[in-house]
Amino acid sequence: MHTVTAADIAAMDKLVRVQFATSLPGAKPISLIGTIDAAGQTNLAPFSSVVHLGSNPALLGMISRPDLVERHTLSNILETKCWTINHLHPDILDAAHQCSARYPREVSEFSATGLTEHFADGFSAPFVAESRFRIGMTLEQIIDITANGTQMIIGRVTLVQTSESMQSDGSLDLPALGCLASTALDTYFTLQPEARLAYAKADRAPRRL
Amino acid sequence: MHTVTAADIAAMDKLVRVQFATSLPGAKPISLIGTIDAAGQTNLAPFSSVVHLGSNPALLGMISRPDLVERHTLSNILETKCWTINHLHPDILDAAHQCSARYPREVSEFSATGLTEHFADGFSAPFVAESRFRIGMTLEQIIDITANGTQMIIGRVTLVQTSESMQSDGSLDLPALGCLASTALDTYFTLQPEARLAYAKADRAPRRL
Repeated sequence: MHTVTAADIAAMDKLVRVQFATSLPGAKPISLIGTIDAAGQTNLAPFSSVVHLGSNPALLGMISRPDLVERHTLSNILETKCWTINHLHPDILDAAHQCSARYPREVSEFSATGLTEHFADGFSAPFVAESRFRIGMTLEQIIDITANGTQMIIGRVTLVQTSESMQSDGSLDLPALGCLASTALDTYFTLQPEARLAYAKADRAPRRL
Repeated sequence: MHTVTAADIAAMDKLVRVQFATSLPGAKPISLIGTIDAAGQTNLAPFSSVVHLGSNPALLGMISRPDLVERHTLSNILETKCWTINHLHPDILDAAHQCSARYPREVSEFSATGLTEHFADGFSAPFVAESRFRIGMTLEQIIDITANGTQMIIGRVTLVQTSESMQSDGSLDLPALGCLASTALDTYFTLQPEARLAYAKADRAPRRL
């Protein structure tokens, strides 16, 4: 086995360290976060830190990193208390990745990349029309992570729009939706079904469904 | 598009709601968290909420859910201040999933599933010997998420062991490591490379590497 210690990580060049550290979670979700400010200016930004927090109510979190540059997503959420999560599929991957470029505040990543705004009744933040799996979120709580100055933005799931209906057990078919995974800052994967396993019980052996 | 509202989610049967809500992040990481208590009793539990928080120092978080049953992972971490993250590959998937069964505290999931304890010098929590991508973590902070009574366990990356060395840019080759993604409570995927994209800049078009 190859070994890397905390001292090795500290000694890495900055970009190498970022690529290494952002590989450590393994497969990460990747989606575009859609927001709008009080004046109606829209924004799109890729996030790979969306995490399930609870099912009843359905809550999701995501991490906003400290930065010397403006954090348009966080400031828009503070203004309008809502955002959208738009899952990617291969046809919109390049446009989605381009949303990580540093556009000035007055430029919407929608117009810069050619993605299309989609608005749902009663929900102010913009969805990505091309996405096949979209979630409308309402702000619940923002938590300061004092360990490194990041913040966790927590929202309640308000609306889910999918091109494929949910399966009989309630789950969504991610490969049918074209859903991608990511690692590091720049690498994307499609999902190949490996297995679905029965609910695990201590008194029986694991069983593939 | 198929639409599901917050009211629809609230009205779902509990297991359907859990499968639906745990599908919403999209592709999730999946790993086994290895811990040990002060008396030397080991524990393994699958987590799909590991998230990157920062690169310098390298910090990762994960979500511990409230539950009526004992949370062995959290109580062990509180006792010994460390844990391991052991990424899966297809050969250990069934044993890893079986670690989600409710074994009594005095039964180690290592012995119950046949996975092998591996200890590294100077690090008390057990690694999974069969894993090809293992991370040793030291407790940094535990944050209460008051929105739903969950907690975020935050640790510093102390040691990384991989069967494949890191690539020249610092990233890890997840498919070569056999790394899996997951969704809902029971579904697993392998990763198929789709694209790696150049660092995005506002004044140039996206480019695949």
